[in-house]
Amino acid sequence: MVPKERIHGILEDYDKDDIVVATLCSHSSLQIFHGARLEGFKTLGIAVDQNTKFYDAFPLGKPDEIIRLGSYAEMLDNVDEFIDRNAIIIPHGSFVEYLGHERFEKVEVPTYGNRKVLHWESDREKEREWLTSAGISMPRKLSDPKDINRPVLVKYHGAKGGRGFFIAKDYPDFKLGIDHTQPYTIQEYIMGTRYYLHYFFSPIAEGGYRTSDGSLELLSIDRRDESNIDEMYKLGAQEELKKHGLFPSFVVTGNIPVVVRESLLPKIFEMGEKVIQRSQELFGGMVGPFCLESIVTDKLEFKVFEISSRIVAGTNPFISGSPYSDTACPRVEGSRRSLGPHWIRGTWTS
Amino acid sequence: MVPKERIHGILEDYDKDDIVVATLCSHSSLQIFHGARLEGFKTLGIAVDQNTKFYDAFPLGKPDEIIRLGSYAEMLDNVDEFIDRNAIIIPHGSFVEYLGHERFEKVEVPTYGNRKVLHWESDREKEREWLTSAGISMPRKLSDPKDINRPVLVKYHGAKGGRGFFIAKDYPDFKLGIDHTQPYTIQEYIMGTRYYLHYFFSPIAEGGYRTSDGSLELLSIDRRDESNIDEMYKLGAQEELKKHGLFPSFVVTGNIPVVVRESLLPKIFEMGEKVIQRSQELFGGMVGPFCLESIVTDKLEFKVFEISSRIVAGTNPFISGSPYSDTACPRVEGSRRSLGPHWIRGTWTS
Amino acid sequence: MVPKERIHGILEDYDKDDIVVATLCSHSSLQIFHGARLEGFKTLGIAVDQNTKFYDAFPLGKPDEIIRLGSYAEMLDNVDEFIDRNAIIIPHGSFVEYLGHERFEKVEVPTYGNRKVLHWESDREKEREWLTSAGISMPRKLSDPKDINRPVLVKYHGAKGGRGFFIAKDYPDFKLGIDHTQPYTIQEYIMGTRYYLHYFFSPIAEGGYRTSDGSLELLSIDRRDESNIDEMYKLGAQEELKKHGLFPSFVVTGNIPVVVRESLLPKIFEMGEKVIQRSQELFGGMVGPFCLESIVTDKLEFKVFEISSRIVAGTNPFISGSPYSDTACPRVEGSRRSLGPHWIRGTWTS
Repeated sequence: MVPKERIHGILEDYDKDDIVVATLCSHSSLQIFHGARLEGFKTLGIAVDQNTKFYDAFPLGKPDEIIRLGSYAEMLDNVDEFIDRNAIIIPHGSFVEYLGHERFEKVEVPTYGNRKVLHWESDREKEREWLTSAGISMPRKLSDPKDINRPVLVKYHGAKGGRGFFIAKDYPDFKLGIDHTQPYTIQEYIMGTRYYLHYFFSPIAEGGYRTSDGSLELLSIDRRDESNIDEMYKLGAQEELKKHGLFPSFVVTGNIPVVVRESLLPKIFEMGEKVIQRSQELFGGMVGPFCLESIVTDKLEFKVFEISSRIVAGTNPFISGSPYSDTACPRVEGSRRSLGPHWIRGTWTS
Repeated sequence: MVPKERIHGILEDYDKDDIVVATLCSHSSLQIFHGARLEGFKTLGIAVDQNTKFYDAFPLGKPDEIIRLGSYAEMLDNVDEFIDRNAIIIPHGSFVEYLGHERFEKVEVPTYGNRKVLHWESDREKEREWLTSAGISMPRKLSDPKDINRPVLVKYHGAKGGRGFFIAKDYPDFKLGIDHTQPYTIQEYIMGTRYYLHYFFSPIAEGGYRTSDGSLELLSIDRRDESNIDEMYKLGAQEELKKHGLFPSFVVTGNIPVVVRESLLPKIFEMGEKVIQRSQELFGGMVGPFCLESIVTDKLEFKVFEISSRIVAGTNPFISGSPYSDTACPRVEGSRRSLGPHWIRGTWTS
Repeated sequence: MVPKERIHGILEDYDKDDIVVATLCSHSSLQIFHGARLEGFKTLGIAVDQNTKFYDAFPLGKPDEIIRLGSYAEMLDNVDEFIDRNAIIIPHGSFVEYLGHERFEKVEVPTYGNRKVLHWESDREKEREWLTSAGISMPRKLSDPKDINRPVLVKYHGAKGGRGFFIAKDYPDFKLGIDHTQPYTIQEYIMGTRYYLHYFFSPIAEGGYRTSDGSLELLSIDRRDESNIDEMYKLGAQEELKKHGLFPSFVVTGNIPVVVRESLLPKIFEMGEKVIQRSQELFGGMVGPFCLESIVTDKLEFKVFEISSRIVAGTNPFISGSPYSDTACPRVEGSRRSLGPHWIRGTWTS
């Protein structure tokens, strides 16, 4: 981990009137660049073997400049270039996944948010420890696959966009699906509807929903659209399809906007608040956008199966606002909420 | 039922320049308060054992003041306080459900809309009588469960957000699921896609889609998101799941925005018009927002399985407008459609 | 086919300052009329046995005038009336389907877009030739139903909104479902999530995403909502339902807004570019809105199962903008993107 002092030293030499917001050309980069520009920042895209012509179709989301690298590892070799440009890196889900969290921890460039969160987020055991000790209800974990007597979801470690996840109803199902070369977790499969809750926590904002030392917002909510599970029902019963060699998969391909029953909002804010508070006790606090990935049961209880401690792609449907952000403050023409004034100004970097 | 004359008497003493819009802090209250404020009204929240801190996150939807009650029944004891404040109550689905329609009928405070609708809406027999006599096509009703030879939906009386509903394909299925302690209805299960049609009828508006004595609008359309039925397919065939003790449930947890095939719009307006007209013949007329809960079959026919004669939570995704309201009138910055100028000004109260 | 010269001759006599945009009163007419008016054009609806009162509810989408015809065939007899009014016809999916593409080709009125596309689009063999020769990956086609050993979709020729399509897993399934009186195609059934990609190609626009001789936009993306397949899962396994005589159907009843994983955007633009380029080689080029109807597999590959070479109803959720159009140019109050300035001004007619 880059020592905090090193980052602070770099920041001291930055020209604060000429900050450049940089991120990887993928995931949610269109809205990151768009929002940064609205706040008066220059923008810098990082492309690794990527075709970036598509930005031409989105002038408002196109970065001012693009750095092209031959591999993600080259990020570490190009630290000086980022520093010379006064760059602050906004990490998004793909950024951390492709670079690798060990490498990300070492990049000696100021990044938005507290890097220490990676340690707690990238390992499913630590993630569970953080969330459950915060009082968040999670799907039960099974340690022995022989104990499977109800539907479970088997997940491999790390953010892989759902690739390789599978559902098992008993031990034979598990044996059929498991890849023993990867570390995995077995979670109780919760029946219900999924809501990906997009929060924003600011330690410097005033007003709004106050936590002990900051303000919490709910930016929007989406449902992830996963291939092939989300349309598999069209073809027939999974039990039948398996006989044809067709198995469900869980690869995120898109996002659908949703809103949640209003009476669930108090619980949603309580959960966000607890997660923030516990993050402060455990590792000095999370800051900025994060997402609780939840299921609502038919008893109207939340079960959180994962946390993403940075911007998720599920915010992409809401570039111009959501029913939540529109009720938080008036939609300003030519502006937007999800990267509002509080987002980067007075940024926390680590 | 409070006599109309009593309400008119109360209204006569109201200061018309200082009307307060009041509703229960749940369901669709954020948009009711937001819209009321845009129209220049003061707002008052009614909280019964509720955590209302979440309003701090939504300054535009936060009521000016909140009255806290120990129970819903206390509404009846606090009538004077509402009257002293010049309050008009906007009933929403949860409001009527939690208070109970018998109690709601007795509250001696002006409320938005015609209270007599409750008598026709809260009893599934009367509801069916109203809709079918208006020429609306509904799923066939079965009186004898032994006659079940096609899929049916068994529903208990009263708006319960789908709790306890179940699907049966034959009589043994029915026997397995039924709770004989509650009154129920057996409806033919219609195959198709669900559209919750949000209408607004104004007897005082001019222009627009004219009925015999008012104007009808289509505000928006949503799909309800129900736990656990709406994601149950992920786990396997229901027939298999039942063997594991897992049964479908129909509890509303959220809403998804949709639009309908344009060629269905004439039918949608005809249905709305007929329902309004029949309500006038039967009980003096419905006013304001209402919702026909429909299924579109693959023959492009509508089957209406329920009516909600007040604002439904399915309008929540459309706080800033919908494709329908945006084609009805230009989106005004800082304003919104669903609680437009015609909504409360010149309100009908009962 | 009307000779191009004939159309050019007609256009020469048009009063360019008094152009009337005409379309059939269905499908996407509300937004076509709304957009045309924003661009300063007069509008003309064509109604064949249709109740058009619903337009009264949508003043912004209501045509200035409506011509009523007794049948679609009468279009051909009323050519002079359209010409006298300086009308340019905007064809949409229902327009071409109801009129019939042979008749549409013969209408001696200027129409938006290149009519030659019909020849390539209305026949599934030609459509496949166009797309595959453009390098687009399509579901594999089977010529002999006896070869069915994986799930396939059987589709009849012509745009029928999915009516009569069916899924077969083997030859007996096929025999059960097939209507031998209609020409059909057997396509491999691709497992994945559906994205209906709404493009716009302008040969006269400057800037943006450049192809060899024009600019390509991504307006929005939707998911079609089909009755009864999209909610059939609620009732149980298809295999069980078939025993009750209940079969899946694929009739489009509505549309749901979606966004796609950002990393898929480069592929989306490449596909659009290739299709445009190949259309120029094959028949002089497509122009304006078109839609690639795609499935994204769990390997994040696109399979395109159909092209619509005109405006699709899936754009209807986005009358006021989409996350894509909002990142392409700022949302202008009282205006809209999907029928922007480039749409009709300098229109291509054939």
